[in-house]
Amino acid sequence: MRPLVVIRNLGLLLVVTSGAILVVAAWSCLQWLLGDETEKAALQALMMTVACGGIVGMLLWFVGRRARHAVGRRDAILLVATSWFVAAAVGALPYRLWPTFAEMPPDTTPFANYVDCYFEAMSGLTTTGATVLTSIESLPRSLHLWRSLTHWLGGLGIVVLFVAVLPMLGVGGKRLFRVEAPGPTPDGVTPRIQETARVLWLIYLGLTVIEIIVLKLVGLTWFESVCHTFATLATGGFSTLNASVAGYQSVAIDVVIIIFMVAAGVNFGLYFQLIKGRWRSVVKDREFRCYIGFLTIGSILVVASIVNRPIVATDGTEIQAGIGDAMRYGIFQVVAVQTTTGFCTADFDLWPFLPKFAMICLMFVGGSAGSTGGGMKVIRFMMAFKILWAELERVFQPNVVRPVRIGTAVIDTEMKLATMVYFVGIAVLTLLGMVLLMLLESGKDIDSITALTASIATLNNIGPGLAKVGATCNFGWFTSASKGVMIVLMALGRLEVMTIAVLFFPRFWRGD
Amino acid sequence: MRPLVVIRNLGLLLVVTSGAILVVAAWSCLQWLLGDETEKAALQALMMTVACGGIVGMLLWFVGRRARHAVGRRDAILLVATSWFVAAAVGALPYRLWPTFAEMPPDTTPFANYVDCYFEAMSGLTTTGATVLTSIESLPRSLHLWRSLTHWLGGLGIVVLFVAVLPMLGVGGKRLFRVEAPGPTPDGVTPRIQETARVLWLIYLGLTVIEIIVLKLVGLTWFESVCHTFATLATGGFSTLNASVAGYQSVAIDVVIIIFMVAAGVNFGLYFQLIKGRWRSVVKDREFRCYIGFLTIGSILVVASIVNRPIVATDGTEIQAGIGDAMRYGIFQVVAVQTTTGFCTADFDLWPFLPKFAMICLMFVGGSAGSTGGGMKVIRFMMAFKILWAELERVFQPNVVRPVRIGTAVIDTEMKLATMVYFVGIAVLTLLGMVLLMLLESGKDIDSITALTASIATLNNIGPGLAKVGATCNFGWFTSASKGVMIVLMALGRLEVMTIAVLFFPRFWRGD
Repeated sequence: MRPLVVIRNLGLLLVVTSGAILVVAAWSCLQWLLGDETEKAALQALMMTVACGGIVGMLLWFVGRRARHAVGRRDAILLVATSWFVAAAVGALPYRLWPTFAEMPPDTTPFANYVDCYFEAMSGLTTTGATVLTSIESLPRSLHLWRSLTHWLGGLGIVVLFVAVLPMLGVGGKRLFRVEAPGPTPDGVTPRIQETARVLWLIYLGLTVIEIIVLKLVGLTWFESVCHTFATLATGGFSTLNASVAGYQSVAIDVVIIIFMVAAGVNFGLYFQLIKGRWRSVVKDREFRCYIGFLTIGSILVVASIVNRPIVATDGTEIQAGIGDAMRYGIFQVVAVQTTTGFCTADFDLWPFLPKFAMICLMFVGGSAGSTGGGMKVIRFMMAFKILWAELERVFQPNVVRPVRIGTAVIDTEMKLATMVYFVGIAVLTLLGMVLLMLLESGKDIDSITALTASIATLNNIGPGLAKVGATCNFGWFTSASKGVMIVLMALGRLEVMTIAVLFFPRFWRGD
Repeated sequence: MRPLVVIRNLGLLLVVTSGAILVVAAWSCLQWLLGDETEKAALQALMMTVACGGIVGMLLWFVGRRARHAVGRRDAILLVATSWFVAAAVGALPYRLWPTFAEMPPDTTPFANYVDCYFEAMSGLTTTGATVLTSIESLPRSLHLWRSLTHWLGGLGIVVLFVAVLPMLGVGGKRLFRVEAPGPTPDGVTPRIQETARVLWLIYLGLTVIEIIVLKLVGLTWFESVCHTFATLATGGFSTLNASVAGYQSVAIDVVIIIFMVAAGVNFGLYFQLIKGRWRSVVKDREFRCYIGFLTIGSILVVASIVNRPIVATDGTEIQAGIGDAMRYGIFQVVAVQTTTGFCTADFDLWPFLPKFAMICLMFVGGSAGSTGGGMKVIRFMMAFKILWAELERVFQPNVVRPVRIGTAVIDTEMKLATMVYFVGIAVLTLLGMVLLMLLESGKDIDSITALTASIATLNNIGPGLAKVGATCNFGWFTSASKGVMIVLMALGRLEVMTIAVLFFPRFWRGD
């Protein structure tokens, strides 16, 4: 373990994060100069954050300046794990400082305390999209922009951004990339890892520009386009409206967001193939097919279950759904949930058991490996299914060795074991989260469905769950201790468990 | 696949099962001669069953008489799987025929139809102990005896009994034993499999005699002693009283049954060690220690949660529990649930969340490998814990190879994979069972806790669950389709999934 390496790079991270906040502050300043008086307090909060983050960051950088460039395996794990918690700590400051500068009485503040702010920031960075806010629309616009920007920064991974932007990380970059990249098989798009990170970010940037323009064309303002694009492509789910996307009451906006949510859940490596003209390899990609298959089957099942029943939209209007409305709201919710975006147009908590259960299952499935989607990733489900199948055959044909393949790649026994361990690990964490929430909220009237789905929705980085954390509810009513549990669950989910879990492992901290 | 082998041995099984029913019929006849008029119809039902079972059995035996003695792997699997369904089919007949001979009007019959009878018989044989009866006490005594005897026969495994009794099975016996034996590592007590089966049955018989005598000494009648002993040592859970064991309102009986439930969940191989005077190897046995550990921790947690609260016993009395009562009812329920016996003295559905959740977890843990207990077996949890631990270490030390051991035995990668696959398989089956129950009962007002715990309680061969399948409820209100699902779940649980699951696998049925 080389603490100096970690300290220096955390300093670097703080400076970069402060830089991102500075961009928001600049926009806020512009709005203020254009006459928006509500921006004044937000601008002060943002500038104060930039100052604090920048100074602390530079201090850390100075302390660690003599560290060698090589990053060991443990250093990489420790750095990536702490990066997310540190970034959230800075990211929470504007939410905390704004009511102070605005001189709001404490009981009218949307954020009750720093834990609330930290929850909101971690929920943003991990692209969960769970909010503590009862009235989202009470925030000044620059804080909305920062909320959405946390999604966008966390979407592909803050450390991946590092690797792409900063050549000085050298060989350590590859390690960091591996630790943070989503999915079990981080396929290099190009041989050099820095090149890969850069290509991924360029694709991400390209998709972002396209969605902003399309959303503007279908009727949003530039500001709302940007915020919703950040939330869509990072599979985050923060909206600028209390009613989420249903607040626009526009079929066109729903459809555009559905398309880009689906796009965000695709392995970004496939876009690279597409750019290179290799569209055949995209169509043939097993995980892509399976991802589309899950979305399609889920959509058919949900639409069939809710057609000809009343649907309550998240803005409160009740619709007697024909096939058209059932498709509009059903497909939107299935896509929003499986891609782990967590936008809402309909209160799916009111739906029958089967579609609700299907959606809970899809929460675990999540997006593809190498996408911005959360969950356990489609490829793990493909692998698990094939492994179970092969083990069944071994019962009556123990001597027949048939390799388990995904496409042409053979999955070796170590990978098989790691996959099954991941499933068991997620199940254990889900139940552990549920039990902790039940115990920490025992004073309040919490039911097991609320606790279970809150655990699932944070661990898989979805956002909304069922019952008291459903589509029309928020997470503000939890105690700070429960919020702490869910903050850890969100980080565990985003970094695919192991990176955080090893920190609780005594042997990790002992020498080499 | 050699169908003749399967047919001949199924015939043999039918004859043996009919023989067991004949014993009950003889006892029934004696009671009738001693003046118990309610036995007349039961005696007729039992004799009719013996006649049917015996004739069909001998016919099958005759058809398959030319089959070779060697039993192939697929034959063994198919035979063991079908044995349980066929034995339950015969075992259900007395329940079905008795109301007919007693000339009861159809709507006053305790068993509504043959599916109910089949459910009761399968629940008995798989030692689940879930009943469809609203009024258990309305049965004649000989049917109570048969209900309890199904537990006792199924406890160690009907096929194991075969192997012990019938020398003609030859080399096939070993295969059959492996397929049916509970737990991942069927340790041979003695080198010869037939000898092993015989020793296990002798130990089982010895424990049975001891418990019958002890229960008689603490106040039960011989009849009640026998019935409750069968249900205890097989970890079944059928009682002769509606209020289960609480109906006796005796601390001594509670304590005796606790002790023998614990004894039934121990690997029977350890009793063999004990007889040989090797008590050290018993005390040192890792799984035994861990099994006792689970029971102890579970008991402490439950007792601490329910002390100084009102406890409602299953006979309806409400007790303001001091530490004594909390221990009496708490320990009884923890032991009854973890050993998968499923006797009840307290309505634990009324307890707080934490003890209920702990008990649901213990349902999955179950007894030791090589015991009569169900569930997933303690050793699988020990292995899973060590595998998860080892995989965590691999994250930051991928090059350090540290073998995973239980005691001195090293667990190879194949075994690791099989263990993790088993966990995922049980999770999938639990959820599948829940969803099927929810869908099949959608007309009725079924909640997800009822469906989930009914699935857990049948798959792990426990008996009672929570909510509408709680300690004071029964399974009679389910539709026949739901009962069919739970019948399959019980068989899956008793044969540890794979033996039944492969039957749904097309390649199993395709030649060699």
